[in-house]
Amino acid sequence: MSPSQRDPSRSTIAGAASGYLSNVSNFKIIESTLREGEQFANAFFTTEKKIEIAKALDDFGVEYLELTSPAASTQSYNDCKAISNLGLKAKILTHVRCHMDDAKLAVETGVDGLDVVIGTSSYLREFSHGKDMQYIIDTATEVIQYIKSKGLEVRFSSEDSFRSDIVDLLNLYRAVDKLGVNRVGIADTVGCASPDQVAELVRTLRGVVSCDIECHFHNDTNCAIANAYAALQNGATHVDTSVLGIGERNGIPSLGGFIARMYAADKEHVKSKYNLTKLREIENLVADAVGVSVPFNNPITGYCAFTHKAGIHAKAILNNPSTYEILKPEDFGMTRYVAIGHRLTGWNAVKNRVEQLSLGLSDSDCKRITAKIKNLADIRPLSLDDVDKLLRKYGEAMVDDSHHAILDSIDTPDQITHM
Amino acid sequence: MSPSQRDPSRSTIAGAASGYLSNVSNFKIIESTLREGEQFANAFFTTEKKIEIAKALDDFGVEYLELTSPAASTQSYNDCKAISNLGLKAKILTHVRCHMDDAKLAVETGVDGLDVVIGTSSYLREFSHGKDMQYIIDTATEVIQYIKSKGLEVRFSSEDSFRSDIVDLLNLYRAVDKLGVNRVGIADTVGCASPDQVAELVRTLRGVVSCDIECHFHNDTNCAIANAYAALQNGATHVDTSVLGIGERNGIPSLGGFIARMYAADKEHVKSKYNLTKLREIENLVADAVGVSVPFNNPITGYCAFTHKAGIHAKAILNNPSTYEILKPEDFGMTRYVAIGHRLTGWNAVKNRVEQLSLGLSDSDCKRITAKIKNLADIRPLSLDDVDKLLRKYGEAMVDDSHHAILDSIDTPDQITHM
Repeated sequence: MSPSQRDPSRSTIAGAASGYLSNVSNFKIIESTLREGEQFANAFFTTEKKIEIAKALDDFGVEYLELTSPAASTQSYNDCKAISNLGLKAKILTHVRCHMDDAKLAVETGVDGLDVVIGTSSYLREFSHGKDMQYIIDTATEVIQYIKSKGLEVRFSSEDSFRSDIVDLLNLYRAVDKLGVNRVGIADTVGCASPDQVAELVRTLRGVVSCDIECHFHNDTNCAIANAYAALQNGATHVDTSVLGIGERNGIPSLGGFIARMYAADKEHVKSKYNLTKLREIENLVADAVGVSVPFNNPITGYCAFTHKAGIHAKAILNNPSTYEILKPEDFGMTRYVAIGHRLTGWNAVKNRVEQLSLGLSDSDCKRITAKIKNLADIRPLSLDDVDKLLRKYGEAMVDDSHHAILDSIDTPDQITHM
Repeated sequence: MSPSQRDPSRSTIAGAASGYLSNVSNFKIIESTLREGEQFANAFFTTEKKIEIAKALDDFGVEYLELTSPAASTQSYNDCKAISNLGLKAKILTHVRCHMDDAKLAVETGVDGLDVVIGTSSYLREFSHGKDMQYIIDTATEVIQYIKSKGLEVRFSSEDSFRSDIVDLLNLYRAVDKLGVNRVGIADTVGCASPDQVAELVRTLRGVVSCDIECHFHNDTNCAIANAYAALQNGATHVDTSVLGIGERNGIPSLGGFIARMYAADKEHVKSKYNLTKLREIENLVADAVGVSVPFNNPITGYCAFTHKAGIHAKAILNNPSTYEILKPEDFGMTRYVAIGHRLTGWNAVKNRVEQLSLGLSDSDCKRITAKIKNLADIRPLSLDDVDKLLRKYGEAMVDDSHHAILDSIDTPDQITHM
């Protein structure tokens, strides 16, 4: 919650100020659908599809697009070239191992920068207090100096950062920071990190390096988005996402989920940077391309993300939607829906529908109808059409005072459907 | 990560000890599929289905089952009775508003305890520094004393706790703690909270009340599971879940995702309490009942949760799966899968398959075949059958030294499929 949203007369947890390290209102997205996303089990992107996705993400407004290493295959090399040549606003990165061969290939393709990663976490896991450190630093030095000599952006990242020796890790990052990298990266390759651990590592790293800090989180325990947020709160500057979170295993922070989190923290900043109404279209594009459905519980675009059902919730939402929804559906091109025809319904929701239909029923009429809806919905839920029919019939029957009799005569939802 | 998993010779973030308030290795699940889950947009559970779900969750080993208020509808009342009479190991709770009428109905049904909630967050939001506090405390006192007089468990919760005035909130909780409630509850009704805010509120509350602390988080910004974990780290004792996270809007922590998080933190504790191999079956049961698909990226049971694709990951996994997987698939009745036939493949994965098939090819053979697979997979991914066929043909052709010629003769994946 941004300071402007805070009511100074009340002391709430949600209104507390963020820390001095926080980049919650100053972050960049490295959108990796075309790199991490290609590691999703059944992802296979043709060149045309990659270009379509790249353009859509550029329209949305992400700051960076990350592509599969040109060393992966011939087509991967050609695709780096093709996407670098599109003239997008987003900077184009490719993700390569810390080898001169890979770096040279990448530079040839015309990308704006290289995300360099130490080949496997086994390096960091196995070198005990500096044994292989010099080898790593020598290799990194050669690769980083080469990339910088070509005038390109360079990030240097470890893998499995949360299970690596913290002293070795900090030594390595300090060394590459001195070599002038644009960013260092931390990666929770196995998906084991929790937000408190992320906060601790990023805060410590923030005190050691002067360059930017990029974070890459896996979602094995469903903490990737919370981890990304904790990283930004503690000094990280760049976050890796993919559309729908697709990636190795069950993936990384989804672009949409991450946007939801950041919007909840600083709505105006997010709205000023990104074209939020494009989100749904991009998700559909990628879902189609990799043959999955958008999950029912997807943030923002899941089909029930803005559906309010229980009477108690519906009442609050109807009274004051802007206070009770942390995400405004209309900002994302979505609409709110208040479900009425079920056994958890409440009379405030029914009354609201009565008003929408201009039926002019009293509160006691609404309560009476609500009781009937609850009884009927114990048999099966009523559609909105059913509810509307019931409300209209009741209203019409008031003319000859038969409205109570009508209500009493209905024992099953099917009777309404066939009215 | 439990202390036993930690190698004292290495200092890692993931190996850091947890705080003195932590209940990460001492928590209880309040499984709310039959309450919060019923608030999911298209949930409609018949009595038979509720009983089937209740039994399955009891087999899994959750400590509590929470049911819809008996005041919601006649069937809801009868279902509370029916499930309370099943003789399950799990304690049965029902979730009621802080009204004597609701409390009396609930007691009649034979449940073990009542989860009482202040009707709407508007109470807490509107009373400015104690104005309506006495009214709330008076009502709560009557309801709580009544429930206790019946010998039942009682929890008292606010709504929208993170946007309520912290002073009012703490006053209220202290008052009900003194009345002898078993638990107080905090609820992020609108899904706005982040893990740092949860940590702060729970830690503060832990110093104010002596009873247990239950937490209820909504998933609008995909932080519900991370929030539940932060709560347990800071002194909460009970966490609300639902199967697949179904609930109001896009729901609350999913049982499976929460289990994944807790397993990553203390595997042995989670394995000792819950029947993990039942998870998949329970998720399928509930998914069918409410007409949704298990999301592709669902923790543990999502179809790609244990699929390793990129060469660099596959190599690590093949070398040492127990180190590189934070979740062991076999503990959940799942299996690991290493994808081979795509352009991101690596020769270690190919070599592993060669060994599985006992083909006796050399490393340089494997590298040569890997290069061919990458070329072919730029056209389309190869199935495992395709890969196996290619490997076998190559092996057979070594007899008359035609193996290189065979490889050179293949230009498209279709040629292999039709071999």
